Amino acid sequence: MRIGIDAMGGDSAPATEVQGALAAKDLLSADDRVVLVGDEPALRALLDAHAGWQEYIEVRHAGQIIGMDESPVEALRTKPDSSMAVLFEMHHAGEVDACISAGNTGACVAAAQMRMRRLPGVHRPGITILMPTGHGPVAISDVGANVSPRPQHLHQYGVMSSVYLSVVRGVENPRVGLMSIGEEDVKGNLLVKQTRDLMRRDPSVNFIGNVEGRDLFNGSCDVVVCDGFVGNVVIKLMEGIAEGVLTSILNEVAAVMPPGKGDVIKHAGRALLAKYDYNEYGGAPLLGVNGTCIICHGSSDHRGIKNAVGVVLESRKHHVNERIIELLSQGQKALHG
Amino acid sequence: MRIGIDAMGGDSAPATEVQGALAAKDLLSADDRVVLVGDEPALRALLDAHAGWQEYIEVRHAGQIIGMDESPVEALRTKPDSSMAVLFEMHHAGEVDACISAGNTGACVAAAQMRMRRLPGVHRPGITILMPTGHGPVAISDVGANVSPRPQHLHQYGVMSSVYLSVVRGVENPRVGLMSIGEEDVKGNLLVKQTRDLMRRDPSVNFIGNVEGRDLFNGSCDVVVCDGFVGNVVIKLMEGIAEGVLTSILNEVAAVMPPGKGDVIKHAGRALLAKYDYNEYGGAPLLGVNGTCIICHGSSDHRGIKNAVGVVLESRKHHVNERIIELLSQGQKALHG
Repeated sequence: MRIGIDAMGGDSAPATEVQGALAAKDLLSADDRVVLVGDEPALRALLDAHAGWQEYIEVRHAGQIIGMDESPVEALRTKPDSSMAVLFEMHHAGEVDACISAGNTGACVAAAQMRMRRLPGVHRPGITILMPTGHGPVAISDVGANVSPRPQHLHQYGVMSSVYLSVVRGVENPRVGLMSIGEEDVKGNLLVKQTRDLMRRDPSVNFIGNVEGRDLFNGSCDVVVCDGFVGNVVIKLMEGIAEGVLTSILNEVAAVMPPGKGDVIKHAGRALLAKYDYNEYGGAPLLGVNGTCIICHGSSDHRGIKNAVGVVLESRKHHVNERIIELLSQGQKALHG
Repeated sequence: MRIGIDAMGGDSAPATEVQGALAAKDLLSADDRVVLVGDEPALRALLDAHAGWQEYIEVRHAGQIIGMDESPVEALRTKPDSSMAVLFEMHHAGEVDACISAGNTGACVAAAQMRMRRLPGVHRPGITILMPTGHGPVAISDVGANVSPRPQHLHQYGVMSSVYLSVVRGVENPRVGLMSIGEEDVKGNLLVKQTRDLMRRDPSVNFIGNVEGRDLFNGSCDVVVCDGFVGNVVIKLMEGIAEGVLTSILNEVAAVMPPGKGDVIKHAGRALLAKYDYNEYGGAPLLGVNGTCIICHGSSDHRGIKNAVGVVLESRKHHVNERIIELLSQGQKALHG
């Protein structure tokens, strides 16, 4: 398999992408290749510090970069030689089998929709993130691909995330909750109420009803479905807490410790925070496109990129897309006869 | 002033409401009274254990209770003798000047809208919560009164929360951010984009643009405006984190401490968590109604109820409603000439 990486996308590109590609070596089979797309001289300079990289890495030049703040569709139109545009063009031409990017999420979603198209039966692709919790990962979908979804979209995010969590992470019959503002049926907005009706009628989803924000952390569900606006607010909030609140609390605890003992706490704290580190999960798949597209956090480190390669390999090995088509088709039959 | 409290609403009613009313004594002036509305025999039995309560507390009987899971409008209609319905009926009749409830939030909002009506110029009331952060409280509005708002509603939540934060908590010229999924203007859904245009054109709001979830904790804004669905998800998420994640982390840190030292951490941890304790802030005002309505968390303890009485007194002392009418009128002139 040939796995393409947008080497210019992330906050510390291309160094992180190059390190990630090198680190991915031990995940690859003999005929797998990583293709780094971006500024060729810069990429070769970084790679040449490592002997033997040519055995599993290729470089494809792209002369432009799409910035994090650019308008996605406009940027793709005006920068056809950007690393993002070239990467997805390569997928369209059959030159890579999967795409990974830590760049502008909106541009990545737009490029994937244009160049990969949708799987049969899928209305709109959605991003599924695995959020680390004390009870293991919880899948949240959508977290930003679709900020104005219809109920049919949310229903499919539940189905697709269930497939992903069950086949890639071995969670049996994942419990799917619908993010709302109370467990009762009367709570929520119109979107939630209409989605709930669809979920209830589809026996291919293990739907447990409405969940609230607190249910992300208490082990009561495996998949949380929400619109992309809410999902994106939630993950940014979690990042803010991990970065700011937890770190400041651990520092304050360390400060009240006896002299010399503060480091024990800081060390323990770092180990604990690692549980909540998204780099461990290696990026979020854009589920529903006819291909494999993994979106990494802009500030992913090399482990995040390496693990994204792992997510690609696992997704293909376990036939995630084939299973999605199958389950959506079963659901359609149940809903519409 | 006569301050009415729904004594049957909270998770541990009426004991908590009675304790809170008793604790509020030192906040009251000589002619202030607290009126507890609920099961009179039960309330008197609890009160009679405390000498002298009759000097500042009155009891009004109400024979029914609205449960947390009941449909708000339906419950108010079928339970006219519920503590919630009777409390707001008393406000309507001029028998109390303010209403406090830790009960069914939806029912409280519905009762307030029906019985207090709106302030002149207000489109829809919204709940403003003060979220404790390491940089001091951040006001979030709306957190559940209005799950399908129009841009005009969100704009007014920004104005009303600014007034509340500035006059009650002394924050000068509060910085108002609009919750979105990126700082750039191109980000967000249609509601966000239309609200941003209104905010920008109103000089009576110190609007700083889009904010993200992480900005709740980094001290970059004082007021966060969002739709009631998103706001409610956010506060439930924060509760889940405070209850679950932080506690488990502190326990884990304590476990790796030398024998006998774990208690130091637990003690320090409790003190730190108190910073994030909503009981300190005493409930959330429903801003925009023609009256003073404070909604407490269902699991508020007696400090939460006592501090809600404090919020009522501060709101009235600083003429929050008069200032809201004034500022909304200024904004209207700026927007429409």
